Amino acid sequence: MKSNCYCVIMAGGIGTRFWPKSRQSCPKQFLDILGTGRSFLRHTFDRFANIVPIENFIVVTNRRYFDLVKEHIPELKDSQILCEPIGRNTAPCIAYAAYSLLRDNPDAEMIVTPSDHLILNEKEFRRVVESSLEFVASRNALMTIGIQPTRPETGYGYIQKSNSEEVCKVKCFTEKPSLEMAEAFIECGEFLWNSGIFIWKVRDIVAAFEEHLPEHASLFGSIVDKLGTDDEKAAIEGVFSACRPISVDYGIMERAENVYVHCGDFGWSDVGTWGSVYQQSRKDRYANALSGDYTNVYNTRNSLISIPKEKVAVVSGLKDYIVVDTPDVLLICPKSEEHSIKSFIEDVKYETGDKYI
Amino acid sequence: MKSNCYCVIMAGGIGTRFWPKSRQSCPKQFLDILGTGRSFLRHTFDRFANIVPIENFIVVTNRRYFDLVKEHIPELKDSQILCEPIGRNTAPCIAYAAYSLLRDNPDAEMIVTPSDHLILNEKEFRRVVESSLEFVASRNALMTIGIQPTRPETGYGYIQKSNSEEVCKVKCFTEKPSLEMAEAFIECGEFLWNSGIFIWKVRDIVAAFEEHLPEHASLFGSIVDKLGTDDEKAAIEGVFSACRPISVDYGIMERAENVYVHCGDFGWSDVGTWGSVYQQSRKDRYANALSGDYTNVYNTRNSLISIPKEKVAVVSGLKDYIVVDTPDVLLICPKSEEHSIKSFIEDVKYETGDKYI
Repeated sequence: MKSNCYCVIMAGGIGTRFWPKSRQSCPKQFLDILGTGRSFLRHTFDRFANIVPIENFIVVTNRRYFDLVKEHIPELKDSQILCEPIGRNTAPCIAYAAYSLLRDNPDAEMIVTPSDHLILNEKEFRRVVESSLEFVASRNALMTIGIQPTRPETGYGYIQKSNSEEVCKVKCFTEKPSLEMAEAFIECGEFLWNSGIFIWKVRDIVAAFEEHLPEHASLFGSIVDKLGTDDEKAAIEGVFSACRPISVDYGIMERAENVYVHCGDFGWSDVGTWGSVYQQSRKDRYANALSGDYTNVYNTRNSLISIPKEKVAVVSGLKDYIVVDTPDVLLICPKSEEHSIKSFIEDVKYETGDKYI
Repeated sequence: MKSNCYCVIMAGGIGTRFWPKSRQSCPKQFLDILGTGRSFLRHTFDRFANIVPIENFIVVTNRRYFDLVKEHIPELKDSQILCEPIGRNTAPCIAYAAYSLLRDNPDAEMIVTPSDHLILNEKEFRRVVESSLEFVASRNALMTIGIQPTRPETGYGYIQKSNSEEVCKVKCFTEKPSLEMAEAFIECGEFLWNSGIFIWKVRDIVAAFEEHLPEHASLFGSIVDKLGTDDEKAAIEGVFSACRPISVDYGIMERAENVYVHCGDFGWSDVGTWGSVYQQSRKDRYANALSGDYTNVYNTRNSLISIPKEKVAVVSGLKDYIVVDTPDVLLICPKSEEHSIKSFIEDVKYETGDKYI
């Protein structure tokens, strides 16, 4: 257990890709979409609870999810939940946590992690994280964890390694490539998926903000003495409304010189689409991923069918479909049309406002 | 208004063909499957309320539906609702009503009607019924109303006319023919669909029971003095448990000599399948029959989609499907597989008992 190390969980997302299961009022990180018995957020907490002490967790989330975070991780004290008044992408989120730690423990190490990913081999994951912590302890290094890719996925960001060592400098980042490019990346062997998990010292990420995102650095730097006091809420409100939304990848990682990647291979998925939920789910012998206590399928193949427990479903004659039923919304859609969910949501929003979103 | 004429509505059915919309606890006659604003039973009552006075209605139903009948036709007095302890097909149902009338008004005329059919042209229907009533008033005749067929339907019974008059003797009855036979029937022009609506004098149907179903006649005859008294319930219990289940078509109409048919053409359907609900429903421009306030379809054709009001549905990429969603059961099934609903129900029953049936 690393008592000088902190784990910052980013849990402010308002994903609609899992609509109608995810809603603005209860986004993906609070759901157990894979039916494991625990939410993504809880899994993330449990995964790191072997690495850092409970009092060293910080969850950064949107203000509206404060109660949900407490419900999923009752171990946290209120002061361990940092509330963003408004989502401003990952750089301000990370700055909020980093400047809070700067005040409490400027020598600390810091892990930053998304709250809604899947990791299968937790033992190997822990090894990679601990080895990264050791690496950054003795250097000014911004470490990102890269994933050995298994297919030419076009929905992920890619990291090009500078050599074949397990830990090495990053040559460059590429956001969501075309299929041809992704295929070339896999072929070439120098590319990893960007997991969005970062490891660094508080001091070093603050220095990186000062160099590459000076506006953000000065906004957050100016309120350090208010963090942890009664004035925090008002101060943060001002900073977030003033600061530009930007991702830490674009704002810092792609610009900094001291960026390293630790190559990991521990069964990772960002579970970003219903298709990836389907991939990660247990299937019946006709390759259907079924949930619900009484979901009966006939002449149905390669489909994901998610039904509330206790509800009966009889589904006949579907191939390659997604069926997601909730008490107030039913979605039936070919897997190949999953990208249309966004526009379905727009139509529903146009008709009924935010009620079903 | 024919004050000597009674209307007997048979409303004891426990149809499961409209599962999951119809349930044992609320079968088809109590539903508004076509979204007209009134249940089938209420439509039936309203249709005949122009022909016979309200106090001349009798609804025969299963005991468990007594309250539902009162709810749908609050105009009825309790004594106008005859409760079967157990379903025994149409002959015992009709005998119960006929022997009850025999005691009250042996000279009465009597219309017998199913409670769950659709009739579009009520004016023409009324003309046919009133003309039939006139016909049977002066003769010992058992009249059935036949429907000019419009397609070689294999799910209906057929009646062969003995000539081309609007009212004529019946040559023979044929239950659900094969497709080839149904096509030949339509071709030949002598055949009508059997609507299950009968018109006769009480005296004449009682005589027919005595001749063709003497066991039933003697069972019901033996309790006439108990009908309408406090002993009715126990007496009927005994009679129903003793009497053989049989349809009036098979038990009387196919055997009697004095059977006539009145040929009608007034937009009739027994609405016996989801397919016929689809046929009778208003369609959108892609031939979808949609219900629910927020049912959004994309790339979907020729489908029936029934969603609870207030629930959002997004349905993409279905052709020729039935989707019926209810709070506790969801059915998705190709139209061509509708006949399998019975076996789906068996499977659900095997898994969960009667809860969802």
